[in-house]
Amino acid sequence: MSIKTKQTFTELLETIKQLLGEEGCPWDKKQTNESIIKYLKSESQELIDALEKKDYPNICEELGDVLYIVILISSINKKEGQFSLEDVFREVNAKLVRRHPHVFAGTSYETEEDLAKQWEKIKQQEKHDAKIQIAPTNNNKGNIK
Amino acid sequence: MSIKTKQTFTELLETIKQLLGEEGCPWDKKQTNESIIKYLKSESQELIDALEKKDYPNICEELGDVLYIVILISSINKKEGQFSLEDVFREVNAKLVRRHPHVFAGTSYETEEDLAKQWEKIKQQEKHDAKIQIAPTNNNKGNIK
Repeated sequence: MSIKTKQTFTELLETIKQLLGEEGCPWDKKQTNESIIKYLKSESQELIDALEKKDYPNICEELGDVLYIVILISSINKKEGQFSLEDVFREVNAKLVRRHPHVFAGTSYETEEDLAKQWEKIKQQEKHDAKIQIAPTNNNKGNIK
Repeated sequence: MSIKTKQTFTELLETIKQLLGEEGCPWDKKQTNESIIKYLKSESQELIDALEKKDYPNICEELGDVLYIVILISSINKKEGQFSLEDVFREVNAKLVRRHPHVFAGTSYETEEDLAKQWEKIKQQEKHDAKIQIAPTNNNKGNIK
């Protein structure tokens, strides 16, 4: 990522911080995990429409709107003590690396069909690991995830 | 944004760059503005489901998936010479500032109803400006947006 791109992203996050801060906008500040659903639906539909029409300036604009919703939902959940935007970045990064060992761990593949099988196998393993994580034990009863 | 959050975002973008690079993943690399629509639909629906269930670890994970789709679509369009991720950041930032003069330009408001009216007025002005921008003139025939 170029320095200019990083700066632009930092500026965007600063704007959103101000928007959700003490002197921010009452509309944005009062959004919740429930209220935001209808905006997520409409913004993702607008992005789909722009993609279908190949309306490039509009694709760019709608990507920004969906991105704002993603950051806003992360902020709502940070305020509620659930997770932060940093957690979102870290988790998707870890998942991309884990699901692409042919790019990040030097494994080889013959065909794209093999790749699809490998992807499915990794997903199954993730589900299996998640089950082990949430199973109660003598030392740790309940959901530890 | 904290330094750690910036680092995590930079790491994510580096991973995606590698994924879409020369030695990257054939599946991710072959996606287009058309092919990506079905994944955008399913990922945004999964985020909606997680929000409805208030499944916080899943909201975090699905936000990451939608974010990846946003960055992937931006990469597709950069490759096609349309716009970059930096353009997405810059445009949404400009729009947020433009639509919130009560936060960024010191204008005042009485009620939330006034705010909604102001928002609508700004949107109408944007549409008007866009029409002027794309109207043909003697010096510049056709779409200049």
